[in-house]
Amino acid sequence: MKKIGLLGSTGSIGTQTLDVIREHPEQFLLISMSVGQNIDLAKKQIQEFKPKLVSVLSDNDKEKLKLEFGDKVEVVSGHEGLVEVAVHEDVDVLVNAVIGSVGLKPTLAAIEEKKQIAIANKETLVTAGHLVTEAANRNGVTLLPVDSEHSAIFQALNGERTMDIERLILTASGGSFRDLTRDALKNVTVEQALNHPNWSMGAKITIDSATMMNKGLEVIEAHWLFNIPYEQIDVLLHKESIIHSMVEFHDKSVMAQLGTPDMRVPIQYALTYPKRLERLNGDRLNLWDIGTLNFAKLDFERYRSIAYAYEAGKKGGSFPTVLNAANEEAVAAFLNKRISFLEIERLIEQALEYHVGIKQPTLEEIIEIDQQSRDFIHSKID
Amino acid sequence: MKKIGLLGSTGSIGTQTLDVIREHPEQFLLISMSVGQNIDLAKKQIQEFKPKLVSVLSDNDKEKLKLEFGDKVEVVSGHEGLVEVAVHEDVDVLVNAVIGSVGLKPTLAAIEEKKQIAIANKETLVTAGHLVTEAANRNGVTLLPVDSEHSAIFQALNGERTMDIERLILTASGGSFRDLTRDALKNVTVEQALNHPNWSMGAKITIDSATMMNKGLEVIEAHWLFNIPYEQIDVLLHKESIIHSMVEFHDKSVMAQLGTPDMRVPIQYALTYPKRLERLNGDRLNLWDIGTLNFAKLDFERYRSIAYAYEAGKKGGSFPTVLNAANEEAVAAFLNKRISFLEIERLIEQALEYHVGIKQPTLEEIIEIDQQSRDFIHSKID
Repeated sequence: MKKIGLLGSTGSIGTQTLDVIREHPEQFLLISMSVGQNIDLAKKQIQEFKPKLVSVLSDNDKEKLKLEFGDKVEVVSGHEGLVEVAVHEDVDVLVNAVIGSVGLKPTLAAIEEKKQIAIANKETLVTAGHLVTEAANRNGVTLLPVDSEHSAIFQALNGERTMDIERLILTASGGSFRDLTRDALKNVTVEQALNHPNWSMGAKITIDSATMMNKGLEVIEAHWLFNIPYEQIDVLLHKESIIHSMVEFHDKSVMAQLGTPDMRVPIQYALTYPKRLERLNGDRLNLWDIGTLNFAKLDFERYRSIAYAYEAGKKGGSFPTVLNAANEEAVAAFLNKRISFLEIERLIEQALEYHVGIKQPTLEEIIEIDQQSRDFIHSKID
Repeated sequence: MKKIGLLGSTGSIGTQTLDVIREHPEQFLLISMSVGQNIDLAKKQIQEFKPKLVSVLSDNDKEKLKLEFGDKVEVVSGHEGLVEVAVHEDVDVLVNAVIGSVGLKPTLAAIEEKKQIAIANKETLVTAGHLVTEAANRNGVTLLPVDSEHSAIFQALNGERTMDIERLILTASGGSFRDLTRDALKNVTVEQALNHPNWSMGAKITIDSATMMNKGLEVIEAHWLFNIPYEQIDVLLHKESIIHSMVEFHDKSVMAQLGTPDMRVPIQYALTYPKRLERLNGDRLNLWDIGTLNFAKLDFERYRSIAYAYEAGKKGGSFPTVLNAANEEAVAAFLNKRISFLEIERLIEQALEYHVGIKQPTLEEIIEIDQQSRDFIHSKID
């Protein structure tokens, strides 16, 4: 029986993590969970999964839940609440499925408690990859990727030696606007951007897919997860999202993981690794039904965000923190219809240009730079 | 330094095995080799690789080589010569790259001497899979597949548990006649059949690809190599031969091995497993250059040979021996222009119908049934 802590239980990855737990009640037990603002869904989840500990964002919601559940469940709140969920003594594996760099502190705390980390929150690794991987190595903790691309690479590396890797090849669907010219991107709307062709995901990651910043963040995440230089990480456009990613080895052999687009597969794999557990409700992949898979080279002029991500990754230090924070704020401004789609990347570019880098930022410096970058974006919008 | 015995050094797999040895003189040493009739090439190979022991088919060729090389190399001949090459005391790994069921006896002998077996000769496993796998298990010997399809599956199973397998998916190019209707197959010539679209291989396997018997033999080989029921082995038409084969696991995840069509990759992998060795001369796979991969369901009416192979495999016992021997003789007759292309499958069908099966045939019974099946085919042709 694996005991699970879940940061972000009402989000897309969170609810699908609960689907996996629901499918295998003999294998998994939810111990603790954190919720943002969707208290109605949280109530249902508490009733069904009966966690010991729940963390919510506001004190107001904390009181509401206490009133409803009495002493059946412990309720905490705020940023400290996230850490309490992460380090609960009964938790074996922490699934980090929150959005944004808010996942960083609880993840570091859980690593220090030697919890396994199933990491769906890519911003944690992007913003502080050196701190997270250093802590994981020091504590002998495996970082289990949940992103379909990184899970694919993780699976392709099963039984292989890191020294035999030639390159990682992340596949990219191209997002909502993959068939538009650069010029046509000027006038796209929020509603159009949220209409992803393959995956049903949260709003922030769907916009990141449309700008391809999502793939840029994944490149940085892959760099840290697999300890591979940026020069050996490629991105391949593959609009069907069937090959989730690949590893080329130096004998020219390429290993790939494929499947229908269903995040429950990588979520479950992170929870069962190195074993696999039967999935009864998933769709089988039959390539004879799909017929054709398409591939194309990435156009860095068409998708500038990914060029900024490579640049920030290669510069290293505090630049990925700036990239991530600026992106989070710019995407939020786009979702609130305060800026246009192409202004997202322009703001990120400006934030990176404005920033004076630090080489090995501490956690405190990262938090400060994160805030400064957000303030910078606001100063450009307001 | 891995010391290698090579059955069939002048064939397609044999010469490419020597390419791999040539590329890595610090890793591999050729100890012994067997040759059929291509004595001119054999002489060059002896000069270059200086094996201790060489086996040839005829006594006449044995005397020729003795005259030329004196006591620099020991020369033996005939079927016993193959066994001597296989069991030479210095050999660590035997590469079985001969054509046809002649590879069976030396392989069994090498297994009893606890040599590792790199198996490119699929007829060995088809004709006597139960004997070979039983002997390998008893002696703790790993059977290392060299066929690109089985190597792909072997690589996809790296770090995985057999109990997690849902099915094996062998890919098939469809061979020289994949774009012809069943009706058009009536009048195809030997020259047309030998013109394989993707792979440059020996004559027998190229004809087997055109009839799809090659894939049928591979299904039986996969059954024995990976201990998987026929019901869990599928064949997928994939004309580009880029995905070499796949494994679907019961969590719906699919692992695949990909690469440019180059047999030196699986040959080398069999020799370096579980490690990988850099290949300097191979072509990288860039899917953005290839652009499109196509897949289609197999039509068992269009490709009847593969239906016979599944049937023989499921019946088991001595039926696969009959399938293989009848196919070898029918293909030879087609290559000699004594029968038409579609008569190959008709003769195999007749041989299987004529045969009264034995459940667990011994080696002697297999050899006898093999001969009877060949005689049966000759009786139908002559």
